This record gives sequence, structure tokens and C-alpha cells, in this order.
Amino acid sequence: MFKKLLIANRGEIALRIMRTCREMGIKTVAVYSTADRDSLHVRFADEAVCIGPPQSSKSYLSIPNILSAAEITNADAIHPGYGFLSENAEFSKICEDYGIKFIGASSEQINQMGDKATAKKTMKKAGVPVIPGSDGLLESVEEGIKLANEMGYPVIVKATAGGGGRGMRIIRKDSEFQKMWDDAKMESGAAFGNDGLYLEKFVEDPRHIEIQVVGDSYGKVCHLSERDCSIQRRHQKLLEETPSPVVNKRLRKKMGEAAIKGAAAIKYEGAGTVEFLVDKHGDFYFMEMNTRIQVEHPITEEVTDFDLIKEQIKVAAGIPISGKNYEPKKFSMECRINAEDPKNGFRPCPGTIKSMHFPGGHGVRVDSHVYVGYTIPPYYDSMIAKVIVTAQSREEVIVRMKRALDEFYIEGVKTTIPFHQKLMENEVFKSGIFTTSFLDTFDFSDL
Amino acid sequence: MFKKLLIANRGEIALRIMRTCREMGIKTVAVYSTADRDSLHVRFADEAVCIGPPQSSKSYLSIPNILSAAEITNADAIHPGYGFLSENAEFSKICEDYGIKFIGASSEQINQMGDKATAKKTMKKAGVPVIPGSDGLLESVEEGIKLANEMGYPVIVKATAGGGGRGMRIIRKDSEFQKMWDDAKMESGAAFGNDGLYLEKFVEDPRHIEIQVVGDSYGKVCHLSERDCSIQRRHQKLLEETPSPVVNKRLRKKMGEAAIKGAAAIKYEGAGTVEFLVDKHGDFYFMEMNTRIQVEHPITEEVTDFDLIKEQIKVAAGIPISGKNYEPKKFSMECRINAEDPKNGFRPCPGTIKSMHFPGGHGVRVDSHVYVGYTIPPYYDSMIAKVIVTAQSREEVIVRMKRALDEFYIEGVKTTIPFHQKLMENEVFKSGIFTTSFLDTFDFSDL
Repeated sequence: MFKKLLIANRGEIALRIMRTCREMGIKTVAVYSTADRDSLHVRFADEAVCIGPPQSSKSYLSIPNILSAAEITNADAIHPGYGFLSENAEFSKICEDYGIKFIGASSEQINQMGDKATAKKTMKKAGVPVIPGSDGLLESVEEGIKLANEMGYPVIVKATAGGGGRGMRIIRKDSEFQKMWDDAKMESGAAFGNDGLYLEKFVEDPRHIEIQVVGDSYGKVCHLSERDCSIQRRHQKLLEETPSPVVNKRLRKKMGEAAIKGAAAIKYEGAGTVEFLVDKHGDFYFMEMNTRIQVEHPITEEVTDFDLIKEQIKVAAGIPISGKNYEPKKFSMECRINAEDPKNGFRPCPGTIKSMHFPGGHGVRVDSHVYVGYTIPPYYDSMIAKVIVTAQSREEVIVRMKRALDEFYIEGVKTTIPFHQKLMENEVFKSGIFTTSFLDTFDFSDL
Repeated sequence: MFKKLLIANRGEIALRIMRTCREMGIKTVAVYSTADRDSLHVRFADEAVCIGPPQSSKSYLSIPNILSAAEITNADAIHPGYGFLSENAEFSKICEDYGIKFIGASSEQINQMGDKATAKKTMKKAGVPVIPGSDGLLESVEEGIKLANEMGYPVIVKATAGGGGRGMRIIRKDSEFQKMWDDAKMESGAAFGNDGLYLEKFVEDPRHIEIQVVGDSYGKVCHLSERDCSIQRRHQKLLEETPSPVVNKRLRKKMGEAAIKGAAAIKYEGAGTVEFLVDKHGDFYFMEMNTRIQVEHPITEEVTDFDLIKEQIKVAAGIPISGKNYEPKKFSMECRINAEDPKNGFRPCPGTIKSMHFPGGHGVRVDSHVYVGYTIPPYYDSMIAKVIVTAQSREEVIVRMKRALDEFYIEGVKTTIPFHQKLMENEVFKSGIFTTSFLDTFDFSDL
């Protein structure tokens, strides 16, 4: 097992990883920018190394700085958390070259899944349902129009190097094609330095459901069931839950088998997530695979009793998994609490926490890195806490979540709590029957 | 179901009860002494009523003041928590007379179990194993010596009205009998206004194991397995765990059945605890029954997924239970964190909390009422938090508890955390094989 692990991240996920390391008897090294000097992850680590100024490019994204920190502290493994360098193939490769175990996917796997067109091709070949579309990159507008007519509008063109909604256009008829194509090409060229586009049938009003998988170095892959991430605003997840209200045992089995097939096809090692769109008929299509731990992983931990960070570390150390799949034994939901003003377009509200009280009690877990006196720096993402609530039924989870949110008290910054409180009383949300476009028509004005 | 519930208590248990009420849609009324004006239980309740000055006798123990608060707020039920009026037969009776539902045992049940000699007789009649001893009160020293010789020394004389170790003497031979008898009689007369004594075989080096039971108003009783409370200092529990390291399925079944028999014999309604001494042969003896919720109830919640306060409220409202017994599905342990200096005889250390961080993450629950800026008043018990840790095995629980205790940061008051940290690394404790006298030889000097 590893002796010392460097955590190439900050905030709640750095603390989260540290907790598991302590339980496993692994020493930890924190890295931090000068903006994070007073952070809990610095205080709780066995060692801490400053890696640069606040800007991520000069600290949390700086491969040389992080590797230097690992070298001088003699760390034998690096956990990248989520975001930052967690899906950076070059970083994974360099760690390997330096003989430091990167706790995540290999550079090859990251590349295979990072390029969307390649990922789709790989999954299709492995027998995973993919959205009908172009076989790889689209060569011309003419080819696109022909394909769109074969499978029927609406379709969507997407940047092969893309993410976060950029370099994407929905096309509803032939006459729109040229303009949308040009727009998407220009946008993706500018954003990703790669203007390659591919085309897909556009799945209207889907649910966004992902399957958690874990693979070991002996080729075994298992799944830990699904998470429903359909509550999104501009492609940003705000709430996740498991099990999904629309996934029954049969669908879980099918989606789980598909996810395992896909992960096994690239000999996936570690924890990963296979994201699917599920349409109203219960048909599902591979969207992408995330080769890292997800923000929303705790809900899976609560319903399966697995410590997913521990699983990541174990398989990275060459320990085999059982290969058994896991069904949710309870219901769990996570609300992301951000220092943002939901009434004003979720505008970030950094600031200093003057006073606070976190909710507690049976079935309530709060993962957070903030404390009274802590100043939220403006440089990073604005998540300040994840409220994870678990109970015996979805109804009970919602009632308990409402109670937990009502009990959550924080002074000094605006947060997304009022949005989540309102959501817990929304009849559509309570019914469980909604799609990824649910929040498009949500009224944020009275929060 | 009740519409408004008054919580006749303070601190963490008041908050704990409020959480469940919120989840059940029941309005809450807090009562508080002037020393508790700034307490969270006052802030989080729907209504709050000041019931008097700091001294408990004039506030939290004042039946007229609490009933007035219930009357003016129109509360239809009272939850007494633990301590204070929770096992006060008069209070239970007066609530009944006033038509306010007392969420606890009836005055008759409290009386039956409150008088130790009566309780023992009742249990014996119901077929619950009791420690061999006098049949009710002991009439004379001569009768005592005769009995002691029949069952063999050591024996113990106990005050029938007693508790907390007062009015008790262990006797090891005939020549000691008269002196011990006189001492115990004087002490119990002074302490309880009742100098009645009974005699028992003294069980040496037992484990203290209690069974959680729940009974409904239709005569059904179930058990939710055991809690091992053998880690005690001067009869004060410091740590509890479930399952007990020494209770196997067979013993759990026998003890569970005995506890149910005992509770059913007095037609017990609500949540209660039947406490047993278990000797080294695995033989167990009824000690006493607590007719209230216990401090340590959360460990049972974590391993059975029951909300025990909810169960109390439900059965008080006349909702029947299923009658099924529950086995622990996981392992859970609670450390009581007190504002006391464990290095100096656990001397209370009230004060103001200047800064703090509670442990979190998977499997960690903290029940507490303190916050940054809160001043712990000197008038009440010194518990400031319960750290409840749950995992798949006892070994994992200990490792996780150690991690959680290391992460627990509090500035401004001394706490018992160093004691618990040391305990988690003690080989005897880790082995699971210890008795109630374990802490008698524990070295507190190097904390």
C-alpha cells in the first residue's frame, strides 16, 4: 500500500480524500495556492506545500509545481480529486514516468474517453448503445444534411474536443444547417484549438443518468448502480439522487451491463462514471465517460456502504475487487450548496463566513471545507458544501433534506440554499418525473 | 398525529427531537432557562418559552413552569428527552391529567421500574433472569448473612430507591456485614429519603449490556438489539457500541426475548432500555429498566435505520409497530465528548467556544448543540457532542473513530477527546474483551 499520498486539489474533495487516507494509515501531502493558506486541507494534512499564486494555471494546474511538491515530500501516489488535473492525460503520463502512482485513469484511457468521437466509436464497438450519428468526425455540411434526413431532425453537432456546452448546436431543419455548422466550428476552434465536429440525433427532454463503475488491474469491472443528475442549470448539476425515480431493476441491470461492457473494453482501472441520456421510452444512449471521482460520489457511498475513494486507492495499489455489482439499499440525494445568489443568475458571492451551523442528525452528511472566519476566495468554484441526505424512501429523503436545508445556517455569503428549499416543495420535483430541461422554466425570482 | 410538541429539555437532545418533529411536520415549542437564551434549541424551535432561572429545580425540573408553557402554547404533547423529568412519575401523571400526551412511560410503569426491588420482583415473575438475591427488601442483618452464605460471597446491598452508585456496598465476608449494612442504610436514607435495602449476589467484572425495546399501545413489543456500555468511569458511561463484541446471535436472541418478556409484563409503551449485567459465562441478569430515550440511542439508529424518536412519537400517537425484531446490519460506536479535563479527574471545564471544526464524511454523525461563540453554562451536564461512527466491522469503526476524533477541533474548552483518542489505540479495548472495571486501571495521566 502507498505510504504517502499527495492530494493535487483543494476544498472539500481534498478533505474528503484525506479522511480516507487517515483511515487507511496513509500519510498525506496537501498542496495549496497562496489564496488557500488558511484552508482546512492545509491544516489537516501531514505535510503541506505551497505551489504558487491563486491563479489555477500557476498552482493547481501546474504540473511541474505539483510534481516538485511530490518529489520533495517523497509522495508515492497522487490523487487528483475532480476538476483541475484529474482528467489530464499528460499529467497521468508524467506521473507514470516519474514512478508516482496517479490515482486515476491511464493517459491512454483518458485520451480514449476525452475525445468524444473516439469514445463513442469505442463504446459502439463494445456493444454499448450510442446515440445514432456520424461515424466519427463529420466531413461536410452535405454529409451532415444527408445523415440528418436519414435519422430525422432534430440533430445536434458537437465539438469532438468539447465539454460544458461549448461548440454545440441543435439543428431542427436543413435550412439551419450551414449557419449552425459554421457557428459550432468557430466556437470549438476558439475554445479547444480543435474544430472537429460530429453529429448526433438530438434526444429531446432526456434524463441524465450515470452509472458508477469500478475496475481493477485484473480486468474485472463492477457497477455500483446509478445516479440521476437531471436537475441541471445550463449543464451544471445542482442536485443528484440515487436510485433514479425512473430506473427500475430491469433498466438498472441493462444500463449497468452496458457500462461494464464499455469500461471493460478499455480495460478501465479505478472509479469511473459512464453517463447516459435516457429517453422517455427508457432507451438509453452513451454520452461520455468520466475517468475520475465525481462531485456526487457520496450518494453512492451512502446507499452501497462503499468508500469510493478507498476503492480508488485500493485498485491503484493493485488490490483486486470482488466483481460483484451493488444495488442501492436506501435512497440518497445531494444538494450542492454554492456561494452564489440564485435569485440573480447564480452570480458567485465570495466572502467571509461570519457565523454558521451545519445540519446534522440521522441520515444527514455534510461534506465541506468551510468554517467560521473562512474567506471564500474568488478564484475557484463556488461550492461550499454538499448536503447528502439518506433515508428509506425518496419521500423521506425529500422531507429530511428540507429539514436539513432549513437547519443550515450561514452568515456572510449568499448561497443556493433557497433554491434547494423551494425545489424540495416543488410538486414536479416531488413526483420524480422531470427531464434535464426542468429548470429551464423554474421560477428563481421569489427565492 | 400531534400538532405541536413541547420539548422539556435542552442541549443536543432538544435539537435531536426537533429534527424528527420537523421531518414529521409537528410544530415545536422549546423551553429554556435564562442561562440558555442563546442556545440553538431556542433558535430552531417554532416557539420558545423561558421557564425560569438557571438552577434546574426552578426551570427544567419545574413541573408547574413547564406545564404553563405547554398550556400557553397549546402544545398537545411533551417530550422529556433524557434526564430532568423524563422518568418522573408525577410529571407523567400530571401531563395525563391535563390531557397532554407525555411521550414516555405511564406513571405506573415509571413507578414499577423506578423502585429497584419492585422492578426486580416484576421481572423475575415475568421469567427474566435476575441476579439471585433477597426477595424484596431485606429485613435484618441476620437474614442477609444467611442469604449471603446460601449463595456465596461477594454480595452487594443496594438502596431500593437508589441510583448512581449511592446507597450501595459490596460485602465479601460475614464480619463486614453489619458495618456495610449500616453505611448503606444511612447513605440511602440521606440521599433518597428511603433507607430500604435489598441484597444481591455481586457479579464480578461483568459487561454492561442493554437491549433497546419499543412497545406499542396494542401490547406488541420488539427489540432493536443491544448496546454495550461497559466503558464506564464511576458508573458514568463514556462510550457505547453495538453490536457488543461478546454478544453472538444466540445470546442476542436470548437477551432480546428476555427484554421483550420483561417489557410486555408491564405492558410497556414507547422506547425503553432493559439493562443487563453479563458475566464471563455469558449468563445475564436484569439490572434495571430505563423508561426513556437513552443518550446512546443513535448507535442503534445507525445500525438498524430506525429513527427512535420517531418511533416514540408514533407509538405515543397510537400507531402500532410491526413487532419484528431488528439485528444490527453494521457496527456503530458513540464517544461522549464532554467539556471536562480527563487528565484532572474529568473536572468540568465550562467556557466559551472560540473556534471549532466537527469531523464529517461517510459514516460519521455528530449530534451537538454547540457553535462558535457559544458559552457552555456551568449549571448542566458537560456533554457538548456525541461522535457516532458507523462502519462494516468493529475494526473499521475504531479506525474511523480515531480519524474523526483527530479531526475534531475545538478551542476554548478542555474536552474528553484525548481520552477517547488514547482509548482507540488501547490493545485491550481493540480486542473487545474487557469488563466494566476496565477503566479502573486506565492511565489518564499522559493525556
